[in-house]
Amino acid sequence: MAEARITPRSQDYAQWYQDVIREAGLAEAAEVVRGCMVIKPHGYAIWEKMQADLDRRFKATGHENAYFPLLIPLSFLAKEAAHVEGFAMECAVVTHSGLKSVDGVLSLKNELEEPYVVRPTSETIIGHFFAKWIDSYRDLPLLINQWANVMRWELRTRLFLRTGEFLWQEGHTAHATHEEAKEEVRRMLDVYRAFSEEIMAVPVIQGVKTDNERFAGAVETFCIEAMMQDGKALQAGTSHDLGQNFGKAFNVTFQSEKGEREFVWQTSWGVSTRLVGAVMMAHGDDDGLVLPPKLAPIHVVIVPIWKSDAEKAEVCAAAHKLAAELRDDGLSVKVDDRDNMRPGEKYYQWERKGVPVRIELGPRDLASQSVMIKRRIAPLDANGKPMKEKLAMDGLGVALGKVLDEFQKFLFERALAFREANTVSVDSWAQFEQVFAGEGSKFVWAHWDGTAATEKAIKDATRATIRCIPHPGHGPKAESGVCVKSGQPSRQRVLFSKSY
Amino acid sequence: MAEARITPRSQDYAQWYQDVIREAGLAEAAEVVRGCMVIKPHGYAIWEKMQADLDRRFKATGHENAYFPLLIPLSFLAKEAAHVEGFAMECAVVTHSGLKSVDGVLSLKNELEEPYVVRPTSETIIGHFFAKWIDSYRDLPLLINQWANVMRWELRTRLFLRTGEFLWQEGHTAHATHEEAKEEVRRMLDVYRAFSEEIMAVPVIQGVKTDNERFAGAVETFCIEAMMQDGKALQAGTSHDLGQNFGKAFNVTFQSEKGEREFVWQTSWGVSTRLVGAVMMAHGDDDGLVLPPKLAPIHVVIVPIWKSDAEKAEVCAAAHKLAAELRDDGLSVKVDDRDNMRPGEKYYQWERKGVPVRIELGPRDLASQSVMIKRRIAPLDANGKPMKEKLAMDGLGVALGKVLDEFQKFLFERALAFREANTVSVDSWAQFEQVFAGEGSKFVWAHWDGTAATEKAIKDATRATIRCIPHPGHGPKAESGVCVKSGQPSRQRVLFSKSY
Repeated sequence: MAEARITPRSQDYAQWYQDVIREAGLAEAAEVVRGCMVIKPHGYAIWEKMQADLDRRFKATGHENAYFPLLIPLSFLAKEAAHVEGFAMECAVVTHSGLKSVDGVLSLKNELEEPYVVRPTSETIIGHFFAKWIDSYRDLPLLINQWANVMRWELRTRLFLRTGEFLWQEGHTAHATHEEAKEEVRRMLDVYRAFSEEIMAVPVIQGVKTDNERFAGAVETFCIEAMMQDGKALQAGTSHDLGQNFGKAFNVTFQSEKGEREFVWQTSWGVSTRLVGAVMMAHGDDDGLVLPPKLAPIHVVIVPIWKSDAEKAEVCAAAHKLAAELRDDGLSVKVDDRDNMRPGEKYYQWERKGVPVRIELGPRDLASQSVMIKRRIAPLDANGKPMKEKLAMDGLGVALGKVLDEFQKFLFERALAFREANTVSVDSWAQFEQVFAGEGSKFVWAHWDGTAATEKAIKDATRATIRCIPHPGHGPKAESGVCVKSGQPSRQRVLFSKSY
Repeated sequence: MAEARITPRSQDYAQWYQDVIREAGLAEAAEVVRGCMVIKPHGYAIWEKMQADLDRRFKATGHENAYFPLLIPLSFLAKEAAHVEGFAMECAVVTHSGLKSVDGVLSLKNELEEPYVVRPTSETIIGHFFAKWIDSYRDLPLLINQWANVMRWELRTRLFLRTGEFLWQEGHTAHATHEEAKEEVRRMLDVYRAFSEEIMAVPVIQGVKTDNERFAGAVETFCIEAMMQDGKALQAGTSHDLGQNFGKAFNVTFQSEKGEREFVWQTSWGVSTRLVGAVMMAHGDDDGLVLPPKLAPIHVVIVPIWKSDAEKAEVCAAAHKLAAELRDDGLSVKVDDRDNMRPGEKYYQWERKGVPVRIELGPRDLASQSVMIKRRIAPLDANGKPMKEKLAMDGLGVALGKVLDEFQKFLFERALAFREANTVSVDSWAQFEQVFAGEGSKFVWAHWDGTAATEKAIKDATRATIRCIPHPGHGPKAESGVCVKSGQPSRQRVLFSKSY
């Protein structure tokens, strides 16, 4: 089967994204189910790596996993006014149970007394159970996480970034005081930031959302925002201070140490399969996917090189022996010994899939007890060709471990440098409009007067939105100024960008 | 909060089951969502241990995980006649998207052109994608597994064993020949048997289902059947030979090596959260849950014993130090240093949760550098009290590892002995009726004439069904005889029991 071409990013970024997803075998649109996707094995393996690392972090911070029903009674959704406002239009609704077949044609059988919605998020159903489980201050804090699928039928969908159904985790916690809940919100935002930077190699800006961008039902929404290679922002994780909103809606109360009945303070926080899209768009290039080693299902692919059958037998045996040794060193290794494909084609396929390191192993390498390795992104030699490196067989596992650590660091630093090169402070409306003209986007630090009206005027004019009001240390030094649009006073710069 | 009583098994087995689930904190009925349940942290942690072990076995046998849509177009279900027949009545159906709110009352907004069913199983939607992905014999075998939630609204539900929504894995594979598919079906049944016996400590009988008990759409269904403590059978896993049924329904074809277009041969296989119920009913006792160490979220609980504050500080510090050392040895350890509860109450709670080993740690133990341990089920001393064992602090991790291995083996052997003591060969109808009279059940090996009519007559008379026709080596020696009901000739005995 001939490989299809990957459209260069510079030519059509959106098409590049689709091409890489297809060529790397990450996912495909499930065109028969509105807005949904199939996550193919390579894409799912990346999500599994994300899950394993996040789950470890959640448990280390005291959370336990549980599982709540997929279906939520319609009336539950209506109990928190802002919440239903935010999610009602996107809900899939179950109205019937059972089908009857007449002459092979299926029709609906039993209408339900009350319809259910397929969960778009689980604050309401979990609130219902928290009310049953929490009785005293001794039951608090209650720290729960759920790994689940959710559905939000939105009009415009895009693989991984915005799909009708997606996979995610949703943390839900209840606390005795607002201060404790706020600490939890910050703690989990920190967990997300650390995960994004250490594992995904994607630097993020953290801060708080404006009223307009807040989660439906929250008091405050905190977020981490990452820059993609087209200069747009991707919201990579959110952590919500729910105040007592859901506590009041679902009557979640506890007896305090003083013996008084009080509403609990709640939080929720989540990240989803959209992170697979974030990794793609942060690191991928015109040759395909580029994976940070900590998320790579395969760290190293070994491609044996042979000319004769005798050579084939020798190098393939050596390749499998080497793979077994490297696996003992904790590396995930694939030997590609297919005999219906030339080495060059194999290189090409594994590059598209983003494997961080390739090993070429031929008879000459065996003789010299060394291997040639090539990083997925390598420095260029004098002729502009990516350099290969010669490594001794002896101690190869340790040496490759070092190469992978370097590559992880390289990707983070490259992404950080890219973001810095594409971040500007803007003080005039003309310059602001210029940055966001056409398909253009950067991260823009600009003063804003704090009103929803100005926020909307800026969005209508440029499609740029306020990604967050940065936390101290996560943006430019606090300084007062005047709003880039209205000229009214501003206390600090906020982050503007177009976004996914 | 006072502990509620656990009804003894001998008094009311079904109530005992409910009581243990409640007291161990495994799950609860989500009474607001018809037939569904909430899996609470302790229950979910057991499921996670099951998932981790099974996932490793699936990957070791060459399978990759992927994720397919939750919703299935109604028309897909109708494409395989036997399949739709089997599942139509249990389907939850999504008919609308979006809600509108008028004066706070929600109503449905957009009716879908074609309804979707919430997947009861995924053969149909996966068949659709297999048809897109498979082109040549080089694409085969295709070995996929999915971890997912599914819905089957059945009339009678029971926590873990039969719930409206449940969690499971479903393997789906496609092969070039029927022989290869049949090998896969057997391989995965072996994986399930090994998992059940080695990890769950539950012995199983493996065999093939009768036509009547076969998966809707399969050519053959293979199963493993476990005995619960009331003598009833629980189907613990199934592996289906789908033949070309779904290949033909979804036009899944490949070009063979000879250049001919052929339909693929498919398999599917699954186990679910009902296995948590199986473990409970195989090992639990009147004090609560009993967990095999390989599924125990907590291997060892340390209960520090003190009288004075000075003692408390000393033993708690020592307990946490010991826990850290045991964790380094790979054990999962909990220190219960709550100060609002006496040691006896703590013992009681952790026994109910099924923790395999308890360590009691007091000042005298510290002085002698030893600990007292108690197995969840221990041999009785001369006074009929469960024995405790004294173990040296030095090398405790290794010693406890040995205790846990012994306990795992003990549970398996106890379950096996129980099954053997409750398995009988029956040759007369009078004796057959007697075994299954009232609430009675055992595993009964009896001759059957091979007809659906006799199978039904036996079920109608006794509620016992044919659990499986055993594989060679998994039942009594093959011998011909006459059917226990009809007196007609029979070639081998089959396994009868009441079942969950």
